[in-house]
Amino acid sequence: MPQSDIMSRQFPKQSVGLVSPQLFHFDEELKLRSGKVLKGFDLMVESYGQLNAQKSNAVLICHALSGDHHAAGYHSHKDKKPGWWESCIGPGKPIDTDRFFVVSLNNLGGCAGSTGPASINPQTGTYYGPDFPVVTVRDWVNSQVLLMKRLEISCWAAVVGGSLGGMQVLRWAISHAQSLQHAVCIAAAPKLSAQNIAFNEVARHSIISDPNFHAGRYLEEGVAPKQGLMLARMVGHITYLSDNAMRSKFGKTVEDFEAPGSNFGRDLRSGKLSYGFNVDFQVESYLHYQGERFSENFDANTYLLMTKALDYFDPSVDYGGDLSKAFSESDCKFLLMSFSTDWRFPPERSRELVNDLLKAGREVTYLEIDADEGHDAFLLPIPRYLEGLGAYMNQVFQKDCSNAA
Amino acid sequence: MPQSDIMSRQFPKQSVGLVSPQLFHFDEELKLRSGKVLKGFDLMVESYGQLNAQKSNAVLICHALSGDHHAAGYHSHKDKKPGWWESCIGPGKPIDTDRFFVVSLNNLGGCAGSTGPASINPQTGTYYGPDFPVVTVRDWVNSQVLLMKRLEISCWAAVVGGSLGGMQVLRWAISHAQSLQHAVCIAAAPKLSAQNIAFNEVARHSIISDPNFHAGRYLEEGVAPKQGLMLARMVGHITYLSDNAMRSKFGKTVEDFEAPGSNFGRDLRSGKLSYGFNVDFQVESYLHYQGERFSENFDANTYLLMTKALDYFDPSVDYGGDLSKAFSESDCKFLLMSFSTDWRFPPERSRELVNDLLKAGREVTYLEIDADEGHDAFLLPIPRYLEGLGAYMNQVFQKDCSNAA
Repeated sequence: MPQSDIMSRQFPKQSVGLVSPQLFHFDEELKLRSGKVLKGFDLMVESYGQLNAQKSNAVLICHALSGDHHAAGYHSHKDKKPGWWESCIGPGKPIDTDRFFVVSLNNLGGCAGSTGPASINPQTGTYYGPDFPVVTVRDWVNSQVLLMKRLEISCWAAVVGGSLGGMQVLRWAISHAQSLQHAVCIAAAPKLSAQNIAFNEVARHSIISDPNFHAGRYLEEGVAPKQGLMLARMVGHITYLSDNAMRSKFGKTVEDFEAPGSNFGRDLRSGKLSYGFNVDFQVESYLHYQGERFSENFDANTYLLMTKALDYFDPSVDYGGDLSKAFSESDCKFLLMSFSTDWRFPPERSRELVNDLLKAGREVTYLEIDADEGHDAFLLPIPRYLEGLGAYMNQVFQKDCSNAA
Repeated sequence: MPQSDIMSRQFPKQSVGLVSPQLFHFDEELKLRSGKVLKGFDLMVESYGQLNAQKSNAVLICHALSGDHHAAGYHSHKDKKPGWWESCIGPGKPIDTDRFFVVSLNNLGGCAGSTGPASINPQTGTYYGPDFPVVTVRDWVNSQVLLMKRLEISCWAAVVGGSLGGMQVLRWAISHAQSLQHAVCIAAAPKLSAQNIAFNEVARHSIISDPNFHAGRYLEEGVAPKQGLMLARMVGHITYLSDNAMRSKFGKTVEDFEAPGSNFGRDLRSGKLSYGFNVDFQVESYLHYQGERFSENFDANTYLLMTKALDYFDPSVDYGGDLSKAFSESDCKFLLMSFSTDWRFPPERSRELVNDLLKAGREVTYLEIDADEGHDAFLLPIPRYLEGLGAYMNQVFQKDCSNAA
C-alpha cells in the first residue's frame, strides 16, 4: 500500500506513489500439474488502494512473461521508472485505486522474490536451478487461490491480465468460476500457435546452448548465460512490436541515407554503413540494449519456465478440445481486448475466445483497439485502450462493489 | 550441362538430370561498394540447356540467402535431392531448358565453391574468414556481369530470382539496363523493413556470440560456431513459413492432446508433455532438425555476409530515396510475383515496387499468388505460381528468343 513520506519527491499525481512489496509465506503443499509437489513457497505481493468492509472491491492483476508484482508506483524516491502497468493502475486510472483494492504478485517460478529457480531449495541448501519444477498457468492460479484465502477475499471483483496474464484470467474463469465477478483478458489467445511455440523454442535453445548455462546450475558456478538470455529477449522483443511500430520507432532505416557521393550516406546511428558486422541501424542497437538490460535483470531458468507455461496452456484439453465447454460453468462476465497490429496474439485469437464464450452463453464485451504498437500495446498508454478498460472497470465498480464502498 | 550415363538411375523426366558445376576464375579486379578491392576471384557455375546461335536465349538465375549454383538436376546418381529450384527449371518446366540456356552461380562470399570467407586468401595463405570483405547486391551483379562477358552473352533473355535473388534482378534492371530483356523478381522487396533487419541482427548476434566463432577465424581453429548458426537458421526458418503453414505442417499442436485423466494426454511427438525442457511439440523438433542440418553444411561467415547484403540493399539511395527514378532508364520488361501469406516480404512490398515501376513508365506484370506456404512458397511447386511464371517465360521465348531458335 502507498506510504507517505515528508521527504518524498513528488510522484505524478495519478500514481499510487511509494509502495512496498510484502512477502507471503505458504506452508501449504502445492500439488503441481506435472505431478510434483512444492512443499511450501513464498509469493512476493504488492497491493494498492484499500479493501472495503465487504471485501467486494478486490482486483487481482496477473503478470505476463517478464512481469512481476511491481505493477504500479515506485519502490524508492530514486526509482526512475514506476511499475510495469503504471498506465492502467492508480488513482483515477482505468483500474482506479481510489475505488479498487488491487493485488499484484510475482508468480511461482519467477525471479522477483517469489519462490523460483533462483531461490534456495530448503531440501538441498542451494539454488533450485533446474530442479525447480515446470509450472503451468493452472499451478499459478492455484497458488493465487491460496493468496486470496490468506487475504480473506472470497471473490475478486475482477481478475485482470494481458498476454500470459490473460491466460491466467481464463484459467480463473474456468476453474474457479465462483471466485470472480469479472474476467478481463487482454491481448491473449486460447493457446499458442505453432509459430508462437517456435519462437519460444528459439529463446529456450539460445539459453540452453549458452556455455554459461551449465545445465541450469549457473548460479552455483557464479556465472549466468547472459548471451543466451540476451538473444532470447531480442527474438521476443521483435514479436512484441509490430512491423509498423519498428518502422516509426527507428525512422526509415536505409532510406534515410543521404544521396550518392557519400558512400551510401549516413545511417541513423553512426553516419555511415560500417561494411562490417558492427551495428549499422538503430533497430540493431535498440535490440542489443533491450537484450543486454534484460539479461542483467532476469533469471534464465525463470525465462525457460515462463515460456513452457505459455506453450502448455490450453484449457480446452480437459473438454475434448472444445473450449466453449470449458466456459460452460464460468458465471463471471468477460471483457476481452485485442490490438489491431498485435501479430503475437492477433485479434483473430481473441475473436476465437469471444466465439467460444458466446457459444457457452457467457456475457462478453469485446474491444478491438486500433493501435500501431503491436503486442506491446497492452502495456502502453493508448487513449482508446485506457478509455475502454476504464469504462468497463467503472461499470464493475458501480454494479458490483459500490454498495459496499 | 546434363550428362548422359548408361549406368545412370532414372531421373525424373522433367529434370535436367545429371549436371556438373564448373569453376570460372576471374583475374579481373573487382572494386567493391565498400571501397575494398578483390584481386581475382572464382565463381562456381552451372548451366542447363543450350545457348542458341544468336545467344538470345540465356537466362540468369540469382540465388537467395542460403542458395547456390546448384539450382536444378543432380550432381550424382546417389543424390537424394535435386537442386533448389528443380520445381521451376527443367525440360517443359516454367524456365524451360528445352528452350532456354539457364545459367546459375554461387555468389561471391558464398560457401559452395565461389570465392568466399571459407576460401584460402592467396595473400595470407590461410582462410579469408572475417577478412573477406562485406559484399553488396551491387557487387554480386558486377561479378555476374563479368561472368556474362566470359560466356560471351551480350543480353540476358531474362534475369530471374526470388527473395534476395529478386533484389539482384532489380539491381540488374537499374544498373545494367541494356543487358537484359526481362526482369523476373519474385517474393522480394525494395528494401528491408526494420523488422527484417532485426531478425537478421538476431541471426548475426547468435553466430558472433557463439564461443566457437573466434572472431570469425573458426576454420583456423578447426571448429565451427554450429550452435550460433543453428539458432540463426531456426529464427530464419520461422520467418520463411507462414503461421498457417506451420499449423498445417505440425498438426494442431496442443489441441491434439487427449482429454483428461492422461496427464494432459499425448503430444504429437512423444505421447505426453515432458514437464521439462526437452522437445515437446513437433514444431520444435522440426526447427532443431532444420537448424542442425544447416549448421553442418553452411559457413557462418557466409551467413553473416548474406544477411548484411540484405540489410544494405536499397537501390533508391542513389536517387534521393525515389525508387521510381531508379527505374527511369530500365528498358526491360518486368514480372513481379508475391505470395499472400509471405510475411517476410509480403505482397505490399511487391506492390510498392509495381507502383514505382508504373510511375517510371515501365511495362510490368504483377501476379499475387494465393498460397499458404509463406515466403518459402517461391521454392515450392505451387501450381498457380508455376503456371504464371511459365506463361510469362513462354512469352519471353516467343517474342525475344524464338527468331533465333
